[in-house]
Amino acid sequence: MLVSALKFGHQLLAEVIVSGDTVVDATVGNGYDTLFLAKLVGKQGKVIGFDIQPQAIEITKQKLLEQHLSCQTRLYLKGHEKIQDVLTNEERIKGAVFNLGYLPKGDKQIITQGKTTITALSTLMDHLEKGGRIVMVIYYGHPGGEQEKETVLDFVKAIPQEEFNVLNYQFINQKNSPPILICIEKKLRKNNP
Amino acid sequence: MLVSALKFGHQLLAEVIVSGDTVVDATVGNGYDTLFLAKLVGKQGKVIGFDIQPQAIEITKQKLLEQHLSCQTRLYLKGHEKIQDVLTNEERIKGAVFNLGYLPKGDKQIITQGKTTITALSTLMDHLEKGGRIVMVIYYGHPGGEQEKETVLDFVKAIPQEEFNVLNYQFINQKNSPPILICIEKKLRKNNP
Repeated sequence: MLVSALKFGHQLLAEVIVSGDTVVDATVGNGYDTLFLAKLVGKQGKVIGFDIQPQAIEITKQKLLEQHLSCQTRLYLKGHEKIQDVLTNEERIKGAVFNLGYLPKGDKQIITQGKTTITALSTLMDHLEKGGRIVMVIYYGHPGGEQEKETVLDFVKAIPQEEFNVLNYQFINQKNSPPILICIEKKLRKNNP
Repeated sequence: MLVSALKFGHQLLAEVIVSGDTVVDATVGNGYDTLFLAKLVGKQGKVIGFDIQPQAIEITKQKLLEQHLSCQTRLYLKGHEKIQDVLTNEERIKGAVFNLGYLPKGDKQIITQGKTTITALSTLMDHLEKGGRIVMVIYYGHPGGEQEKETVLDFVKAIPQEEFNVLNYQFINQKNSPPILICIEKKLRKNNP
């Protein structure tokens, strides 16, 4: 069967992230992606995670401990728009992941916002290694979701094609707003496509 | 690097088509897909190909002969809206491919049309095996292309999700109308998603 947007996003990250890489989980949430990334980068690598909800950070820290993945992970209780405060100027990342929407089983009124999402995305694009990938899974069925989706899509469609590929992977015959996958890849060299 | 729409379409077909299958090339054109399909189905399988341009059929027949792939191939000089005349009622297909637009290096005024494309697509969906896939690569930069694209997208977005998955794979930050990939997959069993 054709794989879901979520699973395809993980495949795209696994194709480029190797042991020792530095990567970012911009929306830690239930820690699902944080664990996935921590396994990919291994003990020599680094996962930097952000979330504004203490429960997300606590639950994820616990899961990382249980699976012996905490030594390669740094979690911050702050919004992803503050990524710039954590990354040093020279620091390069191989990959990053966003889940846009609200924390599953959490407060549905606490949602990611287009403006801060784009601030975080811009910072990550500046730090992205050539060949690196940023994956965004956009959930938009909740109040405010449609607006964030439009803001983010307008932004990514305008990313210069000389330097980046922007891919959209999406099921288009489903009525229940299935998530949209966007992958932003930094080209190995700048060129005209 | 992220693979092109064309290459991703081939990957999706190669995941499900095996030796001995029956498949359809709805737009033979330069024969690129016909050869690809003939290799996948092998001597025990069958590729049924359609094109309205004699030069497309002739060039492709020659290529198939040279590569010893002609015995599993039947090419018809007719439009793909006539597929129903060729397939028997019971005949099942595992896959199909469309390249929508004009014949590369051919007459740019002879283009596929939304209405006949949808007739062909409907027939193929009726004959598609469970788990089978139809791949469409939509080129739309030429006169008339935008109109066909809209007609086809409107149709595929309305395909019932209980029976089919419809996937869209597309680069969205490029100015030169890169092709859009659509994959229609028949579910293994009817269900509510």
